[in-house]
Amino acid sequence: MYFDKAEVLERSELEKLQVERLKKTIDLAANSPYYSESFKKNNINSSVIKTIDDVKRLPFTTKDDLRSQYPHGLLTKPLDEFVRLHASSGTTGTPTAVFYTQKDLDTWADLMARSLYAVGVRRSDILQNMSGYGLFTGGLGIHYGSERLGCLTIPAGAGNTKRQIKLIRDFNVTALHIIPSFALYFAGKVREEGYDPADMPWKIALIGAEPHTEYTRQKIEEELHIKAYNSYGLTEMNGPGVAFECTEQSGMHVWEDSYIAEIIDPETGESVPDGEIGELVMTTLTREGMPIIRYRTRDLTRFIPGQCKCGRTSKRIDRIVGRADDMLIIKGVNIYPMQIENIIMAMPEVGQNYLIELFREGFIDQIKVKVEIKDQYFVEDMRALQGLQKKIANKLRDEILVTPRVELVQHDSIPKSDGKAKRVLDLREVEA
Amino acid sequence: MYFDKAEVLERSELEKLQVERLKKTIDLAANSPYYSESFKKNNINSSVIKTIDDVKRLPFTTKDDLRSQYPHGLLTKPLDEFVRLHASSGTTGTPTAVFYTQKDLDTWADLMARSLYAVGVRRSDILQNMSGYGLFTGGLGIHYGSERLGCLTIPAGAGNTKRQIKLIRDFNVTALHIIPSFALYFAGKVREEGYDPADMPWKIALIGAEPHTEYTRQKIEEELHIKAYNSYGLTEMNGPGVAFECTEQSGMHVWEDSYIAEIIDPETGESVPDGEIGELVMTTLTREGMPIIRYRTRDLTRFIPGQCKCGRTSKRIDRIVGRADDMLIIKGVNIYPMQIENIIMAMPEVGQNYLIELFREGFIDQIKVKVEIKDQYFVEDMRALQGLQKKIANKLRDEILVTPRVELVQHDSIPKSDGKAKRVLDLREVEA
Repeated sequence: MYFDKAEVLERSELEKLQVERLKKTIDLAANSPYYSESFKKNNINSSVIKTIDDVKRLPFTTKDDLRSQYPHGLLTKPLDEFVRLHASSGTTGTPTAVFYTQKDLDTWADLMARSLYAVGVRRSDILQNMSGYGLFTGGLGIHYGSERLGCLTIPAGAGNTKRQIKLIRDFNVTALHIIPSFALYFAGKVREEGYDPADMPWKIALIGAEPHTEYTRQKIEEELHIKAYNSYGLTEMNGPGVAFECTEQSGMHVWEDSYIAEIIDPETGESVPDGEIGELVMTTLTREGMPIIRYRTRDLTRFIPGQCKCGRTSKRIDRIVGRADDMLIIKGVNIYPMQIENIIMAMPEVGQNYLIELFREGFIDQIKVKVEIKDQYFVEDMRALQGLQKKIANKLRDEILVTPRVELVQHDSIPKSDGKAKRVLDLREVEA
Repeated sequence: MYFDKAEVLERSELEKLQVERLKKTIDLAANSPYYSESFKKNNINSSVIKTIDDVKRLPFTTKDDLRSQYPHGLLTKPLDEFVRLHASSGTTGTPTAVFYTQKDLDTWADLMARSLYAVGVRRSDILQNMSGYGLFTGGLGIHYGSERLGCLTIPAGAGNTKRQIKLIRDFNVTALHIIPSFALYFAGKVREEGYDPADMPWKIALIGAEPHTEYTRQKIEEELHIKAYNSYGLTEMNGPGVAFECTEQSGMHVWEDSYIAEIIDPETGESVPDGEIGELVMTTLTREGMPIIRYRTRDLTRFIPGQCKCGRTSKRIDRIVGRADDMLIIKGVNIYPMQIENIIMAMPEVGQNYLIELFREGFIDQIKVKVEIKDQYFVEDMRALQGLQKKIANKLRDEILVTPRVELVQHDSIPKSDGKAKRVLDLREVEA
C-alpha cells in the first residue's frame, strides 16, 4: 500500500532516477548566483555525475553559506516566479530564507500527502492541525499535504486547549498534528476536562517537528491512546515531509526520489558505514526555484540497515540523536549525548536526570555516566544495585561502543541550573 | 483592468448568470438535511426562480439556523468530499462551522486573487500576511488568494513587530495584510525602531477583517504612507473576498457572479431602496459543499447608487455601519450609532468620546448627542461654540434624517466604564 510508486522502486531504478534528477538539479542550480560561482570554482557541471556515488564530488553547502547568500543568492529564477517564502526563526543573526515556486509547493504538498498516507491517514480522515502556522514550515506543510490527500483539515493552530478538545469531539477528529512536547501536556488537559483519552475519536498523531526519544513516543501513545508517528524535515529542505515513518514505526523513510540523503563523519566529511551515526547531508532533487546541494544539516542520525517490512524500498533514517556540534570524541569514538539519553531513559528504574562526565586518567579519556535512580529502586540491597549498574553499563556499551563507568545516584542529587539539568561535564581540560 | 471578465458583465448578462447559478444552488442545497426540509416546508424548488427578483421568495437563513444545524446539517455531500473546515470563534454558545470542498477552496482563492488585483496587487508584488492563520478565515483566505495571483507570499502571521519590520525591509515587501486596529500601533512601532514609514517599500495595505471608519483609513494611510483598502467578508460566505474595494476607494464591489447581495429592513425583511441603510443578506452562488441562501448577516450597510469609475459593473456596498442588533428607531426612522460616530469622528474639533441619549418628550422620541470637544476648540466665544453645535447637528441630520439635539461637552466629561465609553443611553423606558 503506497501513495506513489516512487516509494517502491527497485534500487537500481531509483538510483537511475536520482542520477537523472541530480544532473537536472545541477543544471538548474547553475542559474543561481551562489552555485554558479561555486561550480565554476570547483570545476563542476552536471556531466561529472555518472552514478549516484558521484554526488560526493559536489561541494557541501552549509548554514553559513545560506546566510551569506541571504536573501536571494540561491534563487534560480526571477523573484516574481516565486509564491511563498518561509524563514527559520533566526533569533540570533541572519535568518535562513527559503523560496518556493508554485511547482515547488505542489511537489512539497505531494510529498506531504505521501507522508501522511504512509502512517495510515486516508482521505476519509479528519485531521486537526494543532501546530502554529506562519513562517514555521510545520503548520502550512502539514496543512497543504492534508488537503492534497483529501482529508477534512481543521486549521486549529496552536494553543487554546479547551477549544481544541471541543473541535476534536464535535468533528470526530481522527488524526492530530501535535508537537511532541505539547502532546503530554495536552493529554493531562484532556483528563482535566473530564474526558478519557481512550474515548476520544483520534487514532493517529503526527509528532515530528522536534527530536524526541522512543520513550517519549511510547509515553504519548499510552497517555493519548493513539499511534504516534515521527518524521523528519527542515526548512532548508522545504519543511516537513523529507522522511516519514510508516506504520511499522521502524525508522523514517527518506523520500529518495526527491532527496539524496548521505550520512558523513562531521569531522572528516567522509561517508560513514550504514548503521553508524553521523551527520545527515541532504540534496534536493525536485526543487526548481531554490535547489540546495549537499546541505550539512548538523543533525545526527544513522541509516537503518535492511529493508522495511512495509515494502517501501527507500532508505530509512533513525531518530535524530543530537546535533553535530554536540559530538564528543572518547577513545577515538564519536559519541552523542542523546545516544546515552535514549538508552537510559528507556529503563524503568531510571529517574529524571543524568550527567555525562568526561575526565582523563593518565592520557586516556574516560566517560562516566551518573544516573538518578527512582526511589523504589534505590534499595539497601547492594547486589541489586550493582546488578542495575552493570545492566546500564552493558546497554550503553552496546550503543556507544565504549564501556562507561556508571554511578547510580539518588533522585534529585544531580544539580540543576535554571531548572534545567546540565547534561555534559567535560573535566578533561581542567585536569590536563 | 480586471482579473475576471465576470467583473464587467453587462447587468442583464450578470443577472442571467445569477439566475442560472441560483437555480443550481437551490438544487444543490436540496441535498442538505436543512434545506431539504426547509424547501419542502416552504414548497420551494429551483423552478420558482425566473428572474433575480425571485430570490425574495426564498426563506432567510439565520445564524441560529446555522447553529441548530451544527455541525453537518447544511452539507450537500458526504463528509469525505470536504477538505477544509473553518469555524467562527464561538466564545459564547455553539460555534458556526463552514466546510469547503477542494472546488470551493479553488473558487474562494480565485475570488481572493480577483480582490487583490482590484486594489492594484500584481504577481510581481511581495505580500506579507500579518494576520493570524488558523480557524479565522482572514489568514488562510488572503494567503491562498495571494499565492493564486502569483505574489511572493510571506506567511508572517500576527505579532512579533520587530521581525515583521525586518522581513518587510529584507524582502522589499510591497503589500501588507494588516488588521486595522493593529495598523496604527504598528506605524508607531516602525518609528520607534528608527524607520520613517515613508521610506518603507510598501505601497498597498489590505485592512479588512474589522469594520472601521473612513477616518481610521485616512489615519492609517497618513501614518504608514500607504494606500489602504477596505473589504468585506464573513466566515459563513467563505471568509474575505465577498466584496472588495477597487483603487477608486469608493465602496466595495460585491462579486455578484458568486454572491447575491440584498439589503433589507431588519424589522420587516423587505428590501430597502438603493442608498438606504439596512441589513445585508447574502446568498452563495458558486459554493457546492455548503451553499447558504439569504443569510442574515446582521451587518448594516447600503448599496452605493451609480457606477464605479473603475468600470466594474457590480453593485457596491458602503462600509459596515454597525450590527442590526444596534438599530435604534427614532420618530419611525432606523438609526445606527455608527452612522453618528462616522460623522462626528471625522470632524477635527471632536475629541475621543460621544454619547447618544434617547429620551421621550410627551409621546415623541428625541435623540441627543453629547460630543466631547478638543480643548483648543472649547473656547470662551459662545458664538463659535454655537456655530460648531449647529454644524454638527446639520451634518447629523443629513446622515440620519432626524435632527438631533447636540450638546458640546469638555474633554473627558463623558463617564467611562471599564475604560470603554458607553455609546447609547436609552432613557425612554425609564421615563415612560
